[in-house]
Amino acid sequence: MNVGILGTGITGLTIGTKLVELGHDVMIGSREAANPDAVAWAQDAGRKALYGTFRNAAEFGEIIFNCALGSASLEALDMAGAENLKGKILIDTANPLDHSTDAWTLTVCNTDSLGQQIQRAFPDTKVVKTLNTVNVNVMVDPAKLAEQTDAFVSGNDLEAKAIVVSILRDWFGWTSIIDLGDISTSRAVEAYLLLWQSLRKVMPAKRFNIKVVAS
Amino acid sequence: MNVGILGTGITGLTIGTKLVELGHDVMIGSREAANPDAVAWAQDAGRKALYGTFRNAAEFGEIIFNCALGSASLEALDMAGAENLKGKILIDTANPLDHSTDAWTLTVCNTDSLGQQIQRAFPDTKVVKTLNTVNVNVMVDPAKLAEQTDAFVSGNDLEAKAIVVSILRDWFGWTSIIDLGDISTSRAVEAYLLLWQSLRKVMPAKRFNIKVVAS
Repeated sequence: MNVGILGTGITGLTIGTKLVELGHDVMIGSREAANPDAVAWAQDAGRKALYGTFRNAAEFGEIIFNCALGSASLEALDMAGAENLKGKILIDTANPLDHSTDAWTLTVCNTDSLGQQIQRAFPDTKVVKTLNTVNVNVMVDPAKLAEQTDAFVSGNDLEAKAIVVSILRDWFGWTSIIDLGDISTSRAVEAYLLLWQSLRKVMPAKRFNIKVVAS
Repeated sequence: MNVGILGTGITGLTIGTKLVELGHDVMIGSREAANPDAVAWAQDAGRKALYGTFRNAAEFGEIIFNCALGSASLEALDMAGAENLKGKILIDTANPLDHSTDAWTLTVCNTDSLGQQIQRAFPDTKVVKTLNTVNVNVMVDPAKLAEQTDAFVSGNDLEAKAIVVSILRDWFGWTSIIDLGDISTSRAVEAYLLLWQSLRKVMPAKRFNIKVVAS
């Protein structure tokens, strides 16, 4: 499948590498046509690894991953162009974190979320929020954890969510995926980032996730 | 031990019952001296179960549980009286939830939290935030879940946290307790309530909690 990835940070590059390894054609998009990190990544990752602008990547992808920083996501998507996202699934992995201080806070929360903001700004795109609750190494390789843990999906389009669940399972190896409901439940998984951040500071392992346990 | 509990809702009554069963003397405090729920509870729970005002309960307890609604907690603690809380451990189980709509939101979050508000308002009290991440049935009986899950503690006073960890372990049966850090990490566990709320709507079991899994 042709996949577009927006964002050349560690999340975009790691997901890109994983998808190329799986045999997909991947274009990573950036503000510039030839972002140095994207160029270096494409040289390493082989002939199925492409790079370009946000717009190029959105045009290229049948499915799009938003891996831009939360604070930059809406602008990146604007640069990608609504017409290039129309009708497509947008897998939103971003968190609206303000990294300007050590005590991370969210730039939107409680009554709204980045996932909802994106869905409102791009009503013809099928936004599915997922994977924002884990470090990128867990995103693409959850089996490295000592036990099966949970991924979450939030989105308004049931068919799009079903496809994303298949992607999580078949591409990345997630075996337990909880559908939280419509895109408004992005509020829930984005707010969880505050707990994730506290856990990150005290967990001996840098790779961790949560498992929901019932009676 | 003499324990004071502020709040006659299901959380206060359930914790009260558990503590009486363990042989502690428990006074549940309310806005009124003879709250009907507290009176009925005391009649059921036996001679070690007492009731009174918030002030009576705070005077009585060597350790105090805040089980008032989040929105009512600061007022309840004011009525209890700073002089009756001075030097004592206050176990804060409350969540600052606005229950006025179906889409629960937090009345304070992101940059501040109820736990921090309480600690600032009562600087001579040792506030330890814990147990707010689970339903009351899980609070007092975590072993009913299919696997060991995690409780969290947040607080500035290390000795007070160590005592609360003992209480969680020895009174309630928690076997895995994660110290998140100082009281500012109340932000983390209170924000998690938004995820808890979404999970509550989709989990088949009403009794659930999370387990942190590392590699």
